[in-house]
Amino acid sequence: MPEVVQPALRLGVAGLGTVGIGVVKIVQRHAALLAARSGRRVEIVAVSARNRSKNRDADLSGYAWEDDPVALARRADIDLFVEVMGGHEGAARDATLAAIAAGKDVVTANKALLAHHGQELAEAAEARGCVIRFEAAVAGGIPVIKTLTEGLAGNALRRVMGVMNGTCNYILTRMESAGLPYEAVFEEARQLGYLEADPNLDVGGIDAGHKLALLAAIAFGTRVSFDAVELEGIGRISIDDIRRAGDMGYKIKLLGVAQITGRGLEQRMTPCLVPAMSPLGQLQGGTNMVVLEGDSVGQIVLRGAGAGEGPTASAVMADVVDIGRGIRLPTFGQPAASLAVPVAAKANAPAPYYMRMELLDKPGALAKVATVLGEAGISISRMRQYDHDGTLAPVLIVTHKTTRDAIDHAFSRMPSTGVVTSAPVAIRIEAV
Amino acid sequence: MPEVVQPALRLGVAGLGTVGIGVVKIVQRHAALLAARSGRRVEIVAVSARNRSKNRDADLSGYAWEDDPVALARRADIDLFVEVMGGHEGAARDATLAAIAAGKDVVTANKALLAHHGQELAEAAEARGCVIRFEAAVAGGIPVIKTLTEGLAGNALRRVMGVMNGTCNYILTRMESAGLPYEAVFEEARQLGYLEADPNLDVGGIDAGHKLALLAAIAFGTRVSFDAVELEGIGRISIDDIRRAGDMGYKIKLLGVAQITGRGLEQRMTPCLVPAMSPLGQLQGGTNMVVLEGDSVGQIVLRGAGAGEGPTASAVMADVVDIGRGIRLPTFGQPAASLAVPVAAKANAPAPYYMRMELLDKPGALAKVATVLGEAGISISRMRQYDHDGTLAPVLIVTHKTTRDAIDHAFSRMPSTGVVTSAPVAIRIEAV
Repeated sequence: MPEVVQPALRLGVAGLGTVGIGVVKIVQRHAALLAARSGRRVEIVAVSARNRSKNRDADLSGYAWEDDPVALARRADIDLFVEVMGGHEGAARDATLAAIAAGKDVVTANKALLAHHGQELAEAAEARGCVIRFEAAVAGGIPVIKTLTEGLAGNALRRVMGVMNGTCNYILTRMESAGLPYEAVFEEARQLGYLEADPNLDVGGIDAGHKLALLAAIAFGTRVSFDAVELEGIGRISIDDIRRAGDMGYKIKLLGVAQITGRGLEQRMTPCLVPAMSPLGQLQGGTNMVVLEGDSVGQIVLRGAGAGEGPTASAVMADVVDIGRGIRLPTFGQPAASLAVPVAAKANAPAPYYMRMELLDKPGALAKVATVLGEAGISISRMRQYDHDGTLAPVLIVTHKTTRDAIDHAFSRMPSTGVVTSAPVAIRIEAV
Repeated sequence: MPEVVQPALRLGVAGLGTVGIGVVKIVQRHAALLAARSGRRVEIVAVSARNRSKNRDADLSGYAWEDDPVALARRADIDLFVEVMGGHEGAARDATLAAIAAGKDVVTANKALLAHHGQELAEAAEARGCVIRFEAAVAGGIPVIKTLTEGLAGNALRRVMGVMNGTCNYILTRMESAGLPYEAVFEEARQLGYLEADPNLDVGGIDAGHKLALLAAIAFGTRVSFDAVELEGIGRISIDDIRRAGDMGYKIKLLGVAQITGRGLEQRMTPCLVPAMSPLGQLQGGTNMVVLEGDSVGQIVLRGAGAGEGPTASAVMADVVDIGRGIRLPTFGQPAASLAVPVAAKANAPAPYYMRMELLDKPGALAKVATVLGEAGISISRMRQYDHDGTLAPVLIVTHKTTRDAIDHAFSRMPSTGVVTSAPVAIRIEAV
């Protein structure tokens, strides 16, 4: 054990759900280890939650209780406000601003709060000399914020990508392994408690989009701009597309991609095809993966649990120990005032696309489709027509690199061919 | 751009090989980005190398030259000594100690230096109020030191593992893909320039063993103890074993494993079998992978380039930026005096093993082998006997969990069976 000469780091923990209780358990279990690593004792002074009488899986008797998280945030006897309540308006925001106004450092797991109010909070914290840390807000236990802000600080980032919503990845991999349609697996996930109260936060890509916006800000030195994330959920992904994509050597993932292009900052959280044998393609179930590409380091892949008590509390405690050690960085890795206002670019970076359509089984049908694609400047890399009974022929196409604009143009002209029976599907193939 | 109010961080770079030139290039290319992230300008003041007149791929005209790295380390006009010379005695050690004595911080890529002298250097640095950082010493561009020291600071680590010598992984995966024997691929690797001047540093596991010793010290809060690493290289791995292991669903990797057991700290850098479908099993070529297991976070997997100009310089610059930002941690994550002297445990943690032997094709041969194994307390999980022409029957066995001691005991009794013709092979199967 080291000589502990520093005063203790005193925490106030707001929120006693899964993550908050996880934090309490680590502080109680690892007092010696946290002291050795921080160079000072780490202790919880006070806690707050909506319901005091709820039975919780931890001994809270040694801590002061506050009904109001704002009152907790302002307590004179805490140094650090741990915000693990969730929600991007109301109590979480009020309490975080109150903590900063009172000169407290903040550790938060709240991706929505930062995605919506990150710039305001960062400026407030810097003006007051406080730090805000949010490792737990992105990809659970994976220390991706630290890796990006510090570990790759010598790099100009080129692209950041990630599968960052475990529920969506669970649904997609379960559809494939069980051969079940989306609706059935969605219902399973709900019964297993994998879905947020508002499931659209998960399956609509919003939660993952929040995380992507935070990664993009750090990677590219820009202000968080969640509103500019192109969002598309997994609700339209059919078991058919999962199978067909598999035939062509791909998996379908809800993949977040942020990159700087000549036209500005592209941020997408959309279903994509990735090679089945790539690390992203092989990701099963609820695990998260983040891929970071820098000009010197090349590609770094990080994989781990994206949610749950232990992993999320681990990320919170990493931030706590950093603050205990005296590490004080600007919220997004550089001063808030220096973060550029990003030029949001429509997600149109060229990529190959997977297309699925159903054609009337008539002579020349395929030629008509190929002509429309060709006229839109889209060239075909691979094509596969499936056996069929009846009048509709399922056709798969993998294109060479093209743009979403070109595809939209081509698809707008498909009805005029008279052979494409329903709306064709196009999904981007991301090179990973 | 932020307002830069801090004085510049002035570097002296000792060593102008691949890594040193990589550092020069990043400092020159990314002046604005490094200033924004560090909060101060980062500049190189002076450099040193053995041969001044050598043609190098960077413009060094703006820097002072020192023939002697010790003189560079002592220059009054540098704040930070970047040691990228290599070698664990002589100039690298002298210059690093001189830098510390002169009150300079040190960033080094030198795993051998730290594996042999880590405790001495850490104590010297702390006594003088300096920091030593060494992200580039382990797994190239992967920020594994930071992840372990900081990102997982809330965890008691259970086990750390890694494939951390790209040359060995290249040789093993190339043997498999090309069906070539070890000697042929070793010669290829030599001609491609993948091998150290002393190839035993690579294929004998020494270089990877240095890295494992550093990871173990950080993970478990112990003094670096490279001498206690059980080392075994890849020289005895045959193409036969690679193929047979593949038949059983495994890949062979030179895998480093450190874990605390009831008997003390186990550190091994030895060939192991891992499941072919695991992230470690799927690692191809020169890429590195580190697997970190903590009690809260579960398993974190990091993957990236383990060597090369860009990745290694990226890691050096991450340390430089951290120091620019004022991050000052003890060398091994907690004060050197608090690091425990580890009890070195012989690597005997129970695991399943893969065995290969050749039996005389006589009635009862297999029963005799099974009896010897059974008497040693080893039970068989799976067994496969191959077709054969002639008198020798190749037999593969996958055992249930057992110990190296039990296997050594059983193998010592195999000659007495009269049916085992040559020395049987046993390779640990690591659960990943």
